[in-house]
Amino acid sequence: MDLAKLENSLRRSVEEAARRVRAETPLAPSITNTVTINFVANAQLAAGGSAAMVYMPDEGVAMARAGGALYINMGTIFPFYAETLPATARELHALRKNWVLDPVGIGMGEIRMSVLAGFKATPPPIVRCNASEIIALAALWGLDTGRTAASRVKGVDSHDSVEDALPAAVAVARHSGGAVAVSGAADLVTDGRVAVRCPGGSDRLGLVTGGGCSLGGVMAVYAAVADPLAAALAATCLYNLAAERAAAATSGPGAFQPRFLDELHQASPAGIAAMPMNPEVCP
Amino acid sequence: MDLAKLENSLRRSVEEAARRVRAETPLAPSITNTVTINFVANAQLAAGGSAAMVYMPDEGVAMARAGGALYINMGTIFPFYAETLPATARELHALRKNWVLDPVGIGMGEIRMSVLAGFKATPPPIVRCNASEIIALAALWGLDTGRTAASRVKGVDSHDSVEDALPAAVAVARHSGGAVAVSGAADLVTDGRVAVRCPGGSDRLGLVTGGGCSLGGVMAVYAAVADPLAAALAATCLYNLAAERAAAATSGPGAFQPRFLDELHQASPAGIAAMPMNPEVCP
Amino acid sequence: MDLAKLENSLRRSVEEAARRVRAETPLAPSITNTVTINFVANAQLAAGGSAAMVYMPDEGVAMARAGGALYINMGTIFPFYAETLPATARELHALRKNWVLDPVGIGMGEIRMSVLAGFKATPPPIVRCNASEIIALAALWGLDTGRTAASRVKGVDSHDSVEDALPAAVAVARHSGGAVAVSGAADLVTDGRVAVRCPGGSDRLGLVTGGGCSLGGVMAVYAAVADPLAAALAATCLYNLAAERAAAATSGPGAFQPRFLDELHQASPAGIAAMPMNPEVCP
Repeated sequence: MDLAKLENSLRRSVEEAARRVRAETPLAPSITNTVTINFVANAQLAAGGSAAMVYMPDEGVAMARAGGALYINMGTIFPFYAETLPATARELHALRKNWVLDPVGIGMGEIRMSVLAGFKATPPPIVRCNASEIIALAALWGLDTGRTAASRVKGVDSHDSVEDALPAAVAVARHSGGAVAVSGAADLVTDGRVAVRCPGGSDRLGLVTGGGCSLGGVMAVYAAVADPLAAALAATCLYNLAAERAAAATSGPGAFQPRFLDELHQASPAGIAAMPMNPEVCP
Repeated sequence: MDLAKLENSLRRSVEEAARRVRAETPLAPSITNTVTINFVANAQLAAGGSAAMVYMPDEGVAMARAGGALYINMGTIFPFYAETLPATARELHALRKNWVLDPVGIGMGEIRMSVLAGFKATPPPIVRCNASEIIALAALWGLDTGRTAASRVKGVDSHDSVEDALPAAVAVARHSGGAVAVSGAADLVTDGRVAVRCPGGSDRLGLVTGGGCSLGGVMAVYAAVADPLAAALAATCLYNLAAERAAAATSGPGAFQPRFLDELHQASPAGIAAMPMNPEVCP
Repeated sequence: MDLAKLENSLRRSVEEAARRVRAETPLAPSITNTVTINFVANAQLAAGGSAAMVYMPDEGVAMARAGGALYINMGTIFPFYAETLPATARELHALRKNWVLDPVGIGMGEIRMSVLAGFKATPPPIVRCNASEIIALAALWGLDTGRTAASRVKGVDSHDSVEDALPAAVAVARHSGGAVAVSGAADLVTDGRVAVRCPGGSDRLGLVTGGGCSLGGVMAVYAAVADPLAAALAATCLYNLAAERAAAATSGPGAFQPRFLDELHQASPAGIAAMPMNPEVCP
């Protein structure tokens, strides 16, 4: 495969996705944690989308129908999520709609683990997470990542590197037929055929709670108008751009967050598509 | 009716309400959604009130007793709201206390719809919503708005204009004996006899989640010290003033929100009462 | 006791605690209210710690095991807290781990009151609250504060002064064997033997919802690396320092909050330990 051609094609997809978001203000409802729910909604609005958050089973199903795509974040679990989350995922799967899963907290809690295990049958077109989480998810689903059992167990550890997570990310993307985005110093986005590294962004985002959560929500906005790979890549590039600019303009985490929202709002499709991205063909 | 005299009288009521809020720091507890709950509380504090948020049935009833007025926002529904919300509304009704309803999400969800239908018997002295929501609420309650069934069905659509919503707003206000505030390019506030249009404000507020939710909370603060019409009008004028000033001073949604809170905090009773308001007698 | 020596020793403990937090980024999970949960997490990150919020019983227990210390805030109660909170407190007690209780809302609600009463048997190593709340907690636990029943009843009133709360704070600290921090114009921190008054801070913090809640969360971060008295004192000094600096740099509550987070982030161990503190021996 011609990597320069591939990169050009990816940049065109990213720019097109960003243009469509700005033109269509797509609705991407969320079932997400209470810690960062406000930041998720504000990031979705700033990025050009529309937000709506629900908890109840019948509302999850209604939102699966109403939204262009949906976002499920496993942060703060309520008892009735045992019903809400599978019902919503089944509806999305039946409607063949895009949705984004953030498996935060994987490894802890009976409801979270049984819901995440069940998602194997109606797999999320996009998973957004960190390195340890995708390794744990691939292990939970019993996917072949070419690793021994011993190394899989490392998945509950948070010291895995993005490169260590590549086999798991590829395996999950191949299982879902969608894309996986792994956050790290250089982010990784893959659809199981192509692996794209996106360096950039800022450590400052890690000092604000919800950097990853809100990225998942913005990915869902993009997934309402683009295929999983383009959506995951575009949102990743947007976040790296906005984080770099906001970090350069501020000196602490408090000032960073509002500035970051302003930079999400102001980023142009061309600017997003010009961010560093290094595609390779998956082994 | 002499409209100039009416306008003067309304302005005096608005200024008096704003003075009393600053002097008394009234407590207006809320049962409100998790997305914007922090913004609601901070807006209530910045506007001069006091905030307290609860979920449980016995705490809703306790807060109905403790607060000067109360705020119910139908955003993120929990299963036990089927008990909390009717119990709280019954207590408020029995105590003849002011409260503000934001029927956000009307049209979706079994619990939300049955609770909203039940509120007809203990109607909220103030409803704060958008045009489509008040049309849907009037339809849900079977109120006569002089419209055909076909046009009522339009109520679940978000493209209704504030003017289209006037008959529904008047009908709901006459049913409750209180006031209705409909947000839009020019906001509409009515008690069923007088309809006041309030132009102004800023589109920027729409880029921050919770502009409407927090307005409802501030209206409850005002309703603790003023009658429904004056409270709805005063909070509307305060929001238009603060939004205009914050928009003029900032260039994006991230910087807008903290500035907006500062402008809520700094607005003077005279400044609030001097905002544009155009009263008419209802047909 | 030589009070100058005591003060020097306390300052060294505070500085050491602050250094260890910066060096170790301790995890202090929370079960806390939805109103200020985002501010709690961001304050914990800004102060140098790590945050994780949960609601479910099995996750409370898992977090008691995983965290260096834990924070329980009684703000917005969910029905299943009747199980989550006692189970978590029992696990913390069995593990002899530090945790911080904020008994906000004491006096209201069946679940809150029965959970708080039950905490007497597994007492929180740190209680952070206002004057009325600690008086109410000492009364709920039936502790001897040398007061008549009549004056104890005053505990549900919010007009108690920090000095009025001293006997209750000392009684609770002696019961728990830990520390109590009472917020006020001059904050009071005591372990039942020493009572330290910490003047300073800013009224501005009271115009932002969650000043007290987030202080409790930051106290838990410190309690992961220090004993209860040093942790309570260090977090109190940090808050007074950051609030003073943020108030001096801003003119309203909206701008204050992000600046306050920046000041939390920037405060040095030496600066925290140099804040005013006046120790006395308890009677």
